[in-house]
Amino acid sequence: MADATAPVELLVCTTCRAGQPTDVEGPRPGTQLFEALGTSELPDNVTLRGVECFSNCNQGCSITLRGGADRWTYIYGNFTGAEDVALVAEGVTKYAATADGLVPWRERSTHFRKNCIARIPPLETT
Amino acid sequence: MADATAPVELLVCTTCRAGQPTDVEGPRPGTQLFEALGTSELPDNVTLRGVECFSNCNQGCSITLRGGADRWTYIYGNFTGAEDVALVAEGVTKYAATADGLVPWRERSTHFRKNCIARIPPLETT
Repeated sequence: MADATAPVELLVCTTCRAGQPTDVEGPRPGTQLFEALGTSELPDNVTLRGVECFSNCNQGCSITLRGGADRWTYIYGNFTGAEDVALVAEGVTKYAATADGLVPWRERSTHFRKNCIARIPPLETT
Repeated sequence: MADATAPVELLVCTTCRAGQPTDVEGPRPGTQLFEALGTSELPDNVTLRGVECFSNCNQGCSITLRGGADRWTYIYGNFTGAEDVALVAEGVTKYAATADGLVPWRERSTHFRKNCIARIPPLETT
C-alpha cells in the first residue's frame, strides 16, 4: 500500500567541486551544501546522508531522493553549493509528502524542472 | 553479507528516441534495444524490464543496473539502439557478477567508462 509517510533518504554528493579547478583548496561545494542541509528544517521522515561521488561530475552538485517501496528515485543536478539549501529543502519536502515520489510538474521549482538528471522506478512488487 | 548472485534488474528506457525528431514513426530506439536484449543471452540472475522514461532524454538510450542489498545502482546513457545489444549485455554480465556493483575500471568497456550518467549507493543497512 502506497505510503506518503515512508522514510526518505536525501543523498548529497559531498565530493562535488561544482566545476571548480581541482587545485582550489577549502571545503568543496558539495560538502558545503551537505552541511547547510544538516542545519536546515527537513520533514521528520527525511534522513540526510553524504555520499562520495555520484559519478555525475559534469552536472554540478547533485542530490538523490529515494525511499519507500512505492516511490520513484530522482537524481537532480547543477546545484551550486550551500546557497541552494532552501531550494533543495523545498524539493525534498514536496517529494517526502508523496507516496510515489511523483511531484506534480506545476508544483516543482524551475530548478527541479530543468535539472532532473534521471529517475528510476520503484522495485516491482510482484 | 555481500552476495554476487543476488538478483539484478536491467531497466531499459523504452520511450527513448535517441535524439530522433518527434515526428519519426515506427518503433523507438529504446524499444528496439529493449527487444533485442530480450532475445540475447543474459546471466540467470538478471531480469530485463522496460520502463517508460528515465527523464534522461538528452543523453540517448539509457539503462539502469541495480539489485541486491549491497550493490550500487548505475545509470548509463548514450546508447544508440538495438545495435548496442552486445555492449549492454557485456556490461550487465560484469555488473551481475559483482557483490557490490563496482566493476573495476580496467574491466569496463570504453562506452561504460565514458557514459555513466550517475550512480547511487546501496541502502544503508544499519
